[in-house]
Amino acid sequence: MSKLAYLGPEGTFCEAALRILAPDAERLPCANVGAALDAVRRGEADGAVVPLENSLEGAITQTLDEFAWGEPLLIVAELLLPVEFSLLVRPDTEMRQIKRLITHPAAHTQCRNFIERELPGAVVIHASSTAAAAQEVSNPESPYDAAISPAIAGELYGLTEVASGIGDRTDTVTRFVQVSAHGPLPEPTGADRTSMVAFLKDDHAGALLEMLSEFSVRGINLSRIESRPTGDGIGRYFFHFDCEGHVADARVGEALSGLHRICGDLRFLGSYPRADQVPTQIRTGTSDAEFAEAADWLTRMRAGQI
Amino acid sequence: MSKLAYLGPEGTFCEAALRILAPDAERLPCANVGAALDAVRRGEADGAVVPLENSLEGAITQTLDEFAWGEPLLIVAELLLPVEFSLLVRPDTEMRQIKRLITHPAAHTQCRNFIERELPGAVVIHASSTAAAAQEVSNPESPYDAAISPAIAGELYGLTEVASGIGDRTDTVTRFVQVSAHGPLPEPTGADRTSMVAFLKDDHAGALLEMLSEFSVRGINLSRIESRPTGDGIGRYFFHFDCEGHVADARVGEALSGLHRICGDLRFLGSYPRADQVPTQIRTGTSDAEFAEAADWLTRMRAGQI
Amino acid sequence: MSKLAYLGPEGTFCEAALRILAPDAERLPCANVGAALDAVRRGEADGAVVPLENSLEGAITQTLDEFAWGEPLLIVAELLLPVEFSLLVRPDTEMRQIKRLITHPAAHTQCRNFIERELPGAVVIHASSTAAAAQEVSNPESPYDAAISPAIAGELYGLTEVASGIGDRTDTVTRFVQVSAHGPLPEPTGADRTSMVAFLKDDHAGALLEMLSEFSVRGINLSRIESRPTGDGIGRYFFHFDCEGHVADARVGEALSGLHRICGDLRFLGSYPRADQVPTQIRTGTSDAEFAEAADWLTRMRAGQI
Amino acid sequence: MSKLAYLGPEGTFCEAALRILAPDAERLPCANVGAALDAVRRGEADGAVVPLENSLEGAITQTLDEFAWGEPLLIVAELLLPVEFSLLVRPDTEMRQIKRLITHPAAHTQCRNFIERELPGAVVIHASSTAAAAQEVSNPESPYDAAISPAIAGELYGLTEVASGIGDRTDTVTRFVQVSAHGPLPEPTGADRTSMVAFLKDDHAGALLEMLSEFSVRGINLSRIESRPTGDGIGRYFFHFDCEGHVADARVGEALSGLHRICGDLRFLGSYPRADQVPTQIRTGTSDAEFAEAADWLTRMRAGQI
Repeated sequence: MSKLAYLGPEGTFCEAALRILAPDAERLPCANVGAALDAVRRGEADGAVVPLENSLEGAITQTLDEFAWGEPLLIVAELLLPVEFSLLVRPDTEMRQIKRLITHPAAHTQCRNFIERELPGAVVIHASSTAAAAQEVSNPESPYDAAISPAIAGELYGLTEVASGIGDRTDTVTRFVQVSAHGPLPEPTGADRTSMVAFLKDDHAGALLEMLSEFSVRGINLSRIESRPTGDGIGRYFFHFDCEGHVADARVGEALSGLHRICGDLRFLGSYPRADQVPTQIRTGTSDAEFAEAADWLTRMRAGQI
Repeated sequence: MSKLAYLGPEGTFCEAALRILAPDAERLPCANVGAALDAVRRGEADGAVVPLENSLEGAITQTLDEFAWGEPLLIVAELLLPVEFSLLVRPDTEMRQIKRLITHPAAHTQCRNFIERELPGAVVIHASSTAAAAQEVSNPESPYDAAISPAIAGELYGLTEVASGIGDRTDTVTRFVQVSAHGPLPEPTGADRTSMVAFLKDDHAGALLEMLSEFSVRGINLSRIESRPTGDGIGRYFFHFDCEGHVADARVGEALSGLHRICGDLRFLGSYPRADQVPTQIRTGTSDAEFAEAADWLTRMRAGQI
Repeated sequence: MSKLAYLGPEGTFCEAALRILAPDAERLPCANVGAALDAVRRGEADGAVVPLENSLEGAITQTLDEFAWGEPLLIVAELLLPVEFSLLVRPDTEMRQIKRLITHPAAHTQCRNFIERELPGAVVIHASSTAAAAQEVSNPESPYDAAISPAIAGELYGLTEVASGIGDRTDTVTRFVQVSAHGPLPEPTGADRTSMVAFLKDDHAGALLEMLSEFSVRGINLSRIESRPTGDGIGRYFFHFDCEGHVADARVGEALSGLHRICGDLRFLGSYPRADQVPTQIRTGTSDAEFAEAADWLTRMRAGQI
Repeated sequence: MSKLAYLGPEGTFCEAALRILAPDAERLPCANVGAALDAVRRGEADGAVVPLENSLEGAITQTLDEFAWGEPLLIVAELLLPVEFSLLVRPDTEMRQIKRLITHPAAHTQCRNFIERELPGAVVIHASSTAAAAQEVSNPESPYDAAISPAIAGELYGLTEVASGIGDRTDTVTRFVQVSAHGPLPEPTGADRTSMVAFLKDDHAGALLEMLSEFSVRGINLSRIESRPTGDGIGRYFFHFDCEGHVADARVGEALSGLHRICGDLRFLGSYPRADQVPTQIRTGTSDAEFAEAADWLTRMRAGQI
């Protein structure tokens, strides 16, 4: 049985994601994304599940930066998990008594309308996770009256749910990824995604356009692009890309090789089945069979067998 | 004398930025970026100063999303402010007594090495700003022993600086922008920047490449690109762009018109002098004079005066 | 009544084209394309009809070079004329007597199979036009026994048609254009074509890609591209382009202005109705209405009316 | 000793080119380009030398079409030959007696100024080559008084040179290529050229841009592009490309494979040393070493050895 680290404490959405991705795995809660990934790097866990982006809040930048700068890890699976928030209090607290509220900044944003409407005078303090907020409130000495958290955290910490489904939208999802320390890669399924981090060789005008051309010329769709600062001053960025397809696909392999050649550094993060299982659209001329046929043709041409 | 809102409380880097951008302005501290911008929207302030990005932490996503979704405002100036952090305590606290530390997540990241080396066992809690962290610690009843903040906040809240310059890097800067409610735009200086938000008409493959082509075909360099989720599910993004030049420049105006035509929505955020005063490189064939000459030529051609 | 010059002598396909394009015009046969165009330039004719390209033989390079280097003229109409060839002899000649054959090189190529099959031993000499060949054969002293020409030339010069429809293909067409000395341009019809000649500013790598981008970024399809030598040595070319649409269309006007800015010289040759009357496909975001709306939007943005 | 066919008769520029390219070869004059190439295809010659383009007149379309449609041949060398024309007459003819002049149409164009100035009333008739014109004039019964030809043809056919260097320009050159029936290819020299013919899969808008992108994304400069009609109606073209580099170069091989995949047909015509010996500029990231390193990297990534 494998052991997987995750962004804890118990009761987070991340734990829920892990339970779906690996129902039988032993679970190791960690204080933050970096700690969960370090557990894998040190061999204390066989893998980890961490959040990558949220459809409302965007990228989890700590995860992006860990993937870019930390010792390399391999993404082997992804999961899209709907996000639902509840308002949780200690059993003796009533709604009208809530003056100080604690939650994660993303949850704060996603429940802004509810808070303005139902708790207009409340002060909102930010915790490092929604589960940490619930844990805090469960302490009878806590200066906070309520937490916004997933319901699961309320059960875990003995809190009472005074309101549920309080997010402004009902279709918010968080994308989690499961990582391991090294290969083999998941087999191609025909509905795969490939993630990478690209550092520019030099930050010239048009460098981003050049990188995108490596994908487009081979008929590969990008599904995500995130810029992140390199730390070397305003205006210096590196990029996270997700593209459709698997690095084992000829077109994806050639595109990544092309990026590898033109980038200062290209870090391959993994190829894995898409959570939505949408098959990759393959543009005419870019299938593996067409690549193989072209390679044979080239061999004949180079030998003068025209 | 004008009144400018900013991300308070007093003692934040944002206040320092405001003092440089508008030394004579009356200052209105606000609890968060949204509140500062709303003060402008409601006419309670003549403008606002808010952080946009940090060279280490990246975009301030709350600012990006406020600019994209809130009632439109106009960026009229930018400032790059070096970031220096101090470790601040109540006068009676000693270094070895620090067990619980509070700061903003970005400051936490930027001082990670210092914390690991000097305060290895300390628990770090996140506050909504570094100044809020200092304010919290100044309360004798606070459960926190120390704050990481700019030194100015320590003076303001009566704290003692036990360590200074504790960031991992010494070249970190934050980029602040000053906004106002409406025009006129700052005059072009030859060293300008233009900011905008682009929403795709439909999220087809190649849409980003098309948008970048509107800039590149007119010789305009992009200095920043940020993707943000639209909220309509994973994989749906909109984009913040900063480009070189002023919307009054012919090439920039034509590029923005082109984006306006192909985008579902293009929100113009402003044209303003670059903080670094680096003059825009103008590619041959894209100067205002060349655009004017080409317009005259076209008029003659359309009249058959070949 | 207008007078139109054409590539004579009487009996050429070009005369047939002129009769269709301008049935009532007085016709002025000229010895070659340059002479026909010079007649317009000198005011001796109100216009001219000349061949531009053939679906089998390609461009009529003399016409391309006249349009590029001669005093500018304006294309005002085009016509596609099917090409059919006959074998023409003096009344007393029999098929088996044909030893020496004269025709235009293009006709030679197009009737190659017939000649090899029916006249295997014949020597083929090239004349400057098929009608000139017929005229030559009509001379009883001519060393040539037969001409390959359109049937109309046979009637004109008193020759006998011993074989008809002798071209290898039956779908060959020649594209003719009618030119005049100056404007006004033909009105846009929604099914128009625009022709131009582009000289590079400097012959750098990627210059052609840049020119094509001026069209593609504005959603304009190219229907023809021809490279021609500048005369300044092997490897130095200029380009003839035909694109869909009319220079009065906003997108076409902007593209031509863009080319004018980046090219050493852009010569506008005219906008005129397409012979095939296929309406221009207008990509979303590139209609005149969308350009006008974008121009209004830009004016507001520049005034700070966000 | 090898035997090479060429565009005869003796005394053409093409023979001069052959003498330089292969001084020791046996020479087989042929009536036209097609006949010379057919001699190679039938094994009657070991190779052929034919003209490909002229710096003033442009492409030799018969050669382009033979390369595109005839049985495939391999270009193994190229030569740039300066073109100089002389006015040649029978020994008893004087300049003032010249009323009828015969030459090749390209020579006619290149000597236009001389003819207008010195022989203003002369009728000019076109022959299939300049040497054929000289041969014709050498016949005492010829109706022609003079030929424009290279001086070498005058010597060969016993004509007198009454004027030399009569071309309008002195820097005109013709590019000749030497072909053979099949490989091996010439070794890469670092200053090579590769020629090919590309037929579109379907004639969609943007197809040319896609083809050019296959070169540009791999840093390959095009040195020539020629469009030719497919014969299937006006507006249907195929393309001749010359690019820098050798098909044995990794970047050129990958680009040709890419074209092969997206084209309906890509015909490789050969890789051979450039006549001007200008070394290929290799853009960073596109050298063979960088391609090999990227291939190794990809192998490791695919094996999960991140």
